[in-house]
Amino acid sequence: MTARKTEERVKAGILVTGTEVLTATIRDENGPWLSERLAELGVELVVIMVVADRPADLLAALEHMKASGIDLIITTGGLGPTADDLTAEVVSGFTGRQLALDEEMESKISAILARYAASAPVNMSTEALVAANRKQAMVPEGAIALDPIGTAPGLIVPGDGPVVLVLPGPPRELRPMWAAALGQPMLRGVLDRATPLLSYRLRMFGTPESELASSLRDIEAGGVETGGLEITTCLRRGEVEIDVRYRDGAKADAEALRDALVERHAETVFSFDGTTIDEIVAGLLKDRRLALAESCSAGLLAARITSIPGASKYFAGGVVAYSNAAKADLLGVDPAAIGAHGAVSPEVAGQMASGALERFEADVAVAITGIAGPGGGTEDKPVGFVCFEAVTAEGRSESRSLVIPGGRSDIRDRSALVGMHLLRRLLS
Amino acid sequence: MTARKTEERVKAGILVTGTEVLTATIRDENGPWLSERLAELGVELVVIMVVADRPADLLAALEHMKASGIDLIITTGGLGPTADDLTAEVVSGFTGRQLALDEEMESKISAILARYAASAPVNMSTEALVAANRKQAMVPEGAIALDPIGTAPGLIVPGDGPVVLVLPGPPRELRPMWAAALGQPMLRGVLDRATPLLSYRLRMFGTPESELASSLRDIEAGGVETGGLEITTCLRRGEVEIDVRYRDGAKADAEALRDALVERHAETVFSFDGTTIDEIVAGLLKDRRLALAESCSAGLLAARITSIPGASKYFAGGVVAYSNAAKADLLGVDPAAIGAHGAVSPEVAGQMASGALERFEADVAVAITGIAGPGGGTEDKPVGFVCFEAVTAEGRSESRSLVIPGGRSDIRDRSALVGMHLLRRLLS
Repeated sequence: MTARKTEERVKAGILVTGTEVLTATIRDENGPWLSERLAELGVELVVIMVVADRPADLLAALEHMKASGIDLIITTGGLGPTADDLTAEVVSGFTGRQLALDEEMESKISAILARYAASAPVNMSTEALVAANRKQAMVPEGAIALDPIGTAPGLIVPGDGPVVLVLPGPPRELRPMWAAALGQPMLRGVLDRATPLLSYRLRMFGTPESELASSLRDIEAGGVETGGLEITTCLRRGEVEIDVRYRDGAKADAEALRDALVERHAETVFSFDGTTIDEIVAGLLKDRRLALAESCSAGLLAARITSIPGASKYFAGGVVAYSNAAKADLLGVDPAAIGAHGAVSPEVAGQMASGALERFEADVAVAITGIAGPGGGTEDKPVGFVCFEAVTAEGRSESRSLVIPGGRSDIRDRSALVGMHLLRRLLS
Repeated sequence: MTARKTEERVKAGILVTGTEVLTATIRDENGPWLSERLAELGVELVVIMVVADRPADLLAALEHMKASGIDLIITTGGLGPTADDLTAEVVSGFTGRQLALDEEMESKISAILARYAASAPVNMSTEALVAANRKQAMVPEGAIALDPIGTAPGLIVPGDGPVVLVLPGPPRELRPMWAAALGQPMLRGVLDRATPLLSYRLRMFGTPESELASSLRDIEAGGVETGGLEITTCLRRGEVEIDVRYRDGAKADAEALRDALVERHAETVFSFDGTTIDEIVAGLLKDRRLALAESCSAGLLAARITSIPGASKYFAGGVVAYSNAAKADLLGVDPAAIGAHGAVSPEVAGQMASGALERFEADVAVAITGIAGPGGGTEDKPVGFVCFEAVTAEGRSESRSLVIPGGRSDIRDRSALVGMHLLRRLLS
C-alpha cells in the first residue's frame, strides 16, 4: 500500500477505552470506521489510542492529544452504568466542567431502562437501577447530550482546546449516534473548518500491485498532475483497490488519472464506483439460474453467492464434490476421465460444470477443482493448482488453470474469488 | 465480557506506526497479537497508540509512553528502505543514542537484497540499493540488532527509562522476530521482572453469558476464592470463552473454579484446553464418512469442515440444496413433504439428512434448512428459524429447531456452528 498526502487542516484523535480491546479479547471496530468517516470530511486523523478503563490512563491520553494540537477528540466506550464506566466523568474533569444532572435525559434513560428491565438477565434492584440511571444522566455543564441509541447517551463537550465527542462502545450504537452528532452545530463548528474530500474507488482483478505502481509513474510522467491527489492502493483479499481522494480544485486531475488508469487496464478494472464483485455478479445473474460444482473451495463459492439477500431468485444450488465418488455419482463425471487426467484437471472441471448445469437444470454453472494443500501436491500439479470452468446452457464457456500462492485458506478463498470473476467475464 | 484484575507489575506500551493502519486501509494485526504475548508473560499492557509515519508524531508517542512510567515500548512498522520508514532514526533520537553503521548487518542485508532484486517488480538502481541497504544497517550505539526475517533488522534499544523493542510491520516478520528477541538478555531483563501468568481456557456452547455470570457469583458465594484470578468471559462467534489467568500461588483456586464450572455446566462445556469445535469434530470423524445437505447455510458448514487439512479423509461431500427442486432432485426429498410441512421444517431436514447419507454412501450426515432473511419469514416461521438433523447410517440421530437471532450473516454462520455442535453430540 502506498499513500501520498495532500495539505493538512483539522486534526482529530480517537481514544478507544476498554480493557477488553486492550487485552485483545474483542477487536476494535470503531477506530477504523471513524477513521474512514473523518477522511471523508477532510479531517486529518493524527492518532488512535487504546487504553483500559482507568481514570489516570484516560486522562493522560486526553492530555497527550490536547498537547498534540488536536482539534477534535472522539472517545468510544466507557459509557455504561457500572463503576468502571467513567469516560463522562474523566472528560468532565479534563474540560474543567462540572457534571450536572440532566433531568430530561434522566427520564429518557429511565423509560429505556424500564423496557430493558423486563428482559434483563439478572434482576436489578430498584435502587441500583435508579443509581445507574442517574449516573448516565450526568452531563458536563455547557455540553450537549446525544440521545441514547442503546441505554447510554453520548456527549459533545467543548473545552479550552479540543472539542470532545463522547460516543458509546458498541458499533451498533456508535454509528447512528455519529450520524446524529453531525447535526449538532458544536461539532460542525470543528468539522466544517476542514475541506471535505471528494473521492472515488476503482477495483481491479488480475493486475499486480507492482504493475499498477509502474502505471501510476508512467501516467505522471505522461503529464497527469497528481500533486493534489491522495492515492492509496491496497491489495485486499485478492483484488487491488485504488482510492483517490482530492479537494474540489483537483477534480480535473482526479478524472484524468481515472481515465488513464481505465484506459491502461481496461481488462482488469471491473468496478468504478466501489461496487463489489459479489454485487456485480448478483446483477448479472438476475434472470438466470446458477449451479455450482466445488471441490477445493468446498462451499465457499456457494456461501459467497448466497451472502447477498435474494440469491434464492437465481441460485439453484451446488454440489461440494470432495471425493472422486461424489464427482462421479452426483455430477456424472466419468471415472475414466479422473483416471486419465486426475481429479484436478481442466477435463474434470469441464465435466463437473456440465454435470452441475444438467443436474440442477441451470442456465449457468461454475466448477472448481484444485489442490488446497498442505498435502497432495506433485511436481506437475503443485499445491495451489486449481482448474476452473464456467459454462452456459447455450454452450459458451470460460476456463482457467492457475497456481494460487499462499496457504490452504488463501488458496480456497482465492479459488472462490476467481470463480466470481470467471462468472462475471462469462456473463458480461 | 468482564475482567477482574490482579496486581500490577511490568508495564508495556505498543506503538503501531503506519499511515495505512491509521487510515484503516489495513487492519492492525500486531497490537492484539503482542497484547496476548505480553499477557502470557505477566506484563501489563497500558496503551496501544497508532500514528502515521511522521517523526514528530512518533516522538510525541514515545515521550508520552515514557512519561506514563512504561518499562517496555514495542514499536511495529516503519523499518523499510524508503524515506518514510524512520522508526530506527526516531528511536535513536528518543534514547539519545547515535546511529552507527553495523557492517556485519550491512552485509547480511546486502545478501538478502541480492536475492530479492532478481524478483523485484521494478528495477532498482545499484545506487538506490546500496543506499537502502546502508539505511537499514544503521544501529543505535549500545543497541542490539535482530536479524531480518524479511529485509529489515529489528532492534532492542536501551534508554534512560523504557527499553524500546523495534519490530517490523508485516506480521509474518514480526512474529518470528519477537520469538528471537525473547532470547536476548537485554529484553529478558525487563520481561523477567514480571511474574508469568498461568492460564486455562474453557469453551462453552449453549449457556448464555448472563447465566455464566450468575454461576460465577454462586461459585464465589459457595466459597471458591477468586481474588487472585483474572477471569475473562467473552462471547465469540456464538461460543462463550472463559479465560482464567493466575499466578502460581493461586493455582488451587483456579482449579477449584474450573471444577465448579465444569460441574455446573457439564452439558455445555465442550473444550478444556482451548481446542476448537472444528478440531474436536475432526477428531470424532476420523474413521467415518461425512455428507452434508445445506440450504440456508449454503456451503458454510462444508467450508468449515474442510478448513482443517486432511478433511478429505472423512469428508465425502455435500449438496447445497437452495431450491426446492434441488432438494428433491439431488437429495430425494419428497415434494409432498415440502408441500405439507414447508421447505423449512424438521420433516424436510430429516429427509435431506437421509438423502445425503444415501447419495454419498456416508456414515454420518447433517442437514440444515432455515430462513436466513431478510425476507421469507412468517409468523410461524420467522427469519432465523432453522431446522437441523444429524443422522448416522446405524440410525442414531439428533435434531433441533431453533430461532437464531441477528442478521442474515449471523444466522448463516450460527447455523453452521450449530451443525458442528450437533455432530459433536451425535458422535461423542
